[in-house]
Amino acid sequence: MGIVVQKYGGSSVADADGIKRVAQRIVATKKAGHDVVVVVSAMGDATDDLRDLAEQVTPLPPPRELDMLLTAGERISMALVAMAIAALGHKAQSFTGSQAGVITDSVHGRAKIIDITPGRIEQAIAGGAIAIVAGFQGVSQDTKDVTTLGRGASDTTAVALAAALGAEVCEIYSDVDGVFTADPRIVPTARKLDRISHEEMLEMAASGAKILHLRCVEYARRYNMPVHVRSSFSQKEGTWVLDAPSPDSPEGFAMEQAIIAGVAHDRSEAKITVVGVPDKIGEAARIFEALATSEVNLDMVVQNVSAATTSRTDISFTLPREDGQAAMSALARLQDEVGYDKLLFDDRIGKVSLIGAGMRSHPGITAKFFAALASAGVNIEMISTSEIRISVIVDESQVDTAVQATHTAFDLDAAEVEAVVYGGTGR
Amino acid sequence: MGIVVQKYGGSSVADADGIKRVAQRIVATKKAGHDVVVVVSAMGDATDDLRDLAEQVTPLPPPRELDMLLTAGERISMALVAMAIAALGHKAQSFTGSQAGVITDSVHGRAKIIDITPGRIEQAIAGGAIAIVAGFQGVSQDTKDVTTLGRGASDTTAVALAAALGAEVCEIYSDVDGVFTADPRIVPTARKLDRISHEEMLEMAASGAKILHLRCVEYARRYNMPVHVRSSFSQKEGTWVLDAPSPDSPEGFAMEQAIIAGVAHDRSEAKITVVGVPDKIGEAARIFEALATSEVNLDMVVQNVSAATTSRTDISFTLPREDGQAAMSALARLQDEVGYDKLLFDDRIGKVSLIGAGMRSHPGITAKFFAALASAGVNIEMISTSEIRISVIVDESQVDTAVQATHTAFDLDAAEVEAVVYGGTGR
Repeated sequence: MGIVVQKYGGSSVADADGIKRVAQRIVATKKAGHDVVVVVSAMGDATDDLRDLAEQVTPLPPPRELDMLLTAGERISMALVAMAIAALGHKAQSFTGSQAGVITDSVHGRAKIIDITPGRIEQAIAGGAIAIVAGFQGVSQDTKDVTTLGRGASDTTAVALAAALGAEVCEIYSDVDGVFTADPRIVPTARKLDRISHEEMLEMAASGAKILHLRCVEYARRYNMPVHVRSSFSQKEGTWVLDAPSPDSPEGFAMEQAIIAGVAHDRSEAKITVVGVPDKIGEAARIFEALATSEVNLDMVVQNVSAATTSRTDISFTLPREDGQAAMSALARLQDEVGYDKLLFDDRIGKVSLIGAGMRSHPGITAKFFAALASAGVNIEMISTSEIRISVIVDESQVDTAVQATHTAFDLDAAEVEAVVYGGTGR
Repeated sequence: MGIVVQKYGGSSVADADGIKRVAQRIVATKKAGHDVVVVVSAMGDATDDLRDLAEQVTPLPPPRELDMLLTAGERISMALVAMAIAALGHKAQSFTGSQAGVITDSVHGRAKIIDITPGRIEQAIAGGAIAIVAGFQGVSQDTKDVTTLGRGASDTTAVALAAALGAEVCEIYSDVDGVFTADPRIVPTARKLDRISHEEMLEMAASGAKILHLRCVEYARRYNMPVHVRSSFSQKEGTWVLDAPSPDSPEGFAMEQAIIAGVAHDRSEAKITVVGVPDKIGEAARIFEALATSEVNLDMVVQNVSAATTSRTDISFTLPREDGQAAMSALARLQDEVGYDKLLFDDRIGKVSLIGAGMRSHPGITAKFFAALASAGVNIEMISTSEIRISVIVDESQVDTAVQATHTAFDLDAAEVEAVVYGGTGR
């Protein structure tokens, strides 16, 4: 049997009991004949506690030092997991991101993995040990400094490592049973998905579903790595994130595939409208160049048709709320040059997305979606679509209503409540 | 001006305020024109808290993993100190033991430094930065695993690094003002020493004085590194630990040197007596071989003259209390072979030592010491001497009395109380 990579989130290793429970599950996998590589997050709220400590010292910690600080979190949890496995009579060795060969660029706080050279991990498992690897961290190729990959990036470590090791599967453990058709806190009758394709999961993650980190899904798709999302608190099968059906094997997974995978929502964005932009070639480009220079990440962009009488148009876009200040400043500096009328900023919005690979071959999904929202009295402010996703911006207060109405309209409701949240609320 | 290495103990960096205070002192040294390299311990009780966490997971953590866990402590403190310095507008970079080039053997939990290759530290200070180095930790030459150097070994890291960097001085900061003629908790009128020689400090540390780690003093003596022991809570001059006066410069330090440096005590030992050992050649050797095989560290050893009537003798020795169980087991296994009568174990003993380089040239010190103990009603159980030290074993309940009487007899009492303990009780 091959290599299994397991990733345990902070809620699964929140205390000594959690760590012992996780160790038993790891040992059971090893006893079943697999080579096991485990990626762990920091215990419970450890990372946030370290951030608070930094905040007490200075509001603006140098990113290199913040990374040095935060990586202490996984160092603690991985050593404890290795100890718990040893206490069960099995060999275990823990490895920092650097020791595990997680090579990154030098962008502290949100470094990108550029290579994985897992020589020490391979050596450890060849010697019969279970390897425990710190998630979320790596070492920069240029400076040899310790880096972190950004919030929630332990998932990414796990999938990237699984790909580099040629693992059979990457199991992502958290405190929920898998990927649901909607957030069970909003839709209590949300159903657990048995399977979802990489591309659907990618759209779900990009649309605000927090169960898997976006970059982790990108990795899984690129390397065609099966990901099994499940709970460390139960033995239930979770959700398999698998390659989309290919022309070579159109059956099986494809046969079972539902038209709609689920409904995702996101309350982390804000909307900016540039009112009265002169409708000349190059004006929009100038605006978006200024935003790019300020490193603002845009999501949806809508430009109205200009009114014939004024030759002016409105440009609206959404962006992460924390980028709002930077974007408004960049645009304000541009007012004289571009000659727009005014800027509007709205951070009381939410995005609701309907995702499903079946959309490609089923016309009428958009109409049904909008009809459901209209019946529920939800006003649509912006629309954006991809091949397998439709997203709308609505008022923040209407997000729950919109998600519930959509979930029901597409017959996603389960007969009874399936979702259980174990342990704490974090991952 | 040259390089100054400063070491701050856990009580000096116990919280955000302590870290900011330490940062100011570091920056002041930098502003005075020195290159500064700082060695830090873990914050307050952080190391003990991590040990407790390990204990909750397993009573017998694998040493490699325990080292991985414990080294998180300095990682946190060093990153926070670097941040606090940056907040004061100065460049600072933190380095793990491994990054700082602290190369050790592979004995986890009590690794020995075998080399220091401080290339990254030299590079950082050449670039104008203050280098912050994790104390207590290194990396094993053979396995590339993270090691720890044993409790209190941050002092050793500091002196070894100071020697490798060719520093002018190694400053050891704690919550007391320096080295005192006795423990101020027992002798309130203990005097702070302005100077003490390396060899006297070595005997003090070996005799139970906890102000400096024994291996740190050994390093300082071997590399002739001046050590300045002082408080991070005040600006007072502390105690200089300096090279003993040499034939080339018999004056200065030597002129001022007192006959007696101080009185040390140690309550961490136990005494074992092997009663009725046949007085034959080789019997004692067999006993001590068995103890050595069990890795028991002996301190004092006394063999009585055998009684002519029985041809049997008693052998007594002292050892660390935690080695007591191992020693008793090793000796019990030997009873038939050696044919001794019985074993006595006493862990209610204490050691009181009088230390002073002046002993060499001042006869009568021993007599005066024993007279002082007799006047105070203290019974001497064992005696051992070196060139510059006399140690006695007494009943544990008489340690305080013995220290006080000795301190007074040798005119060491100050006119008023000098010792101040700042902050907490730890280092």
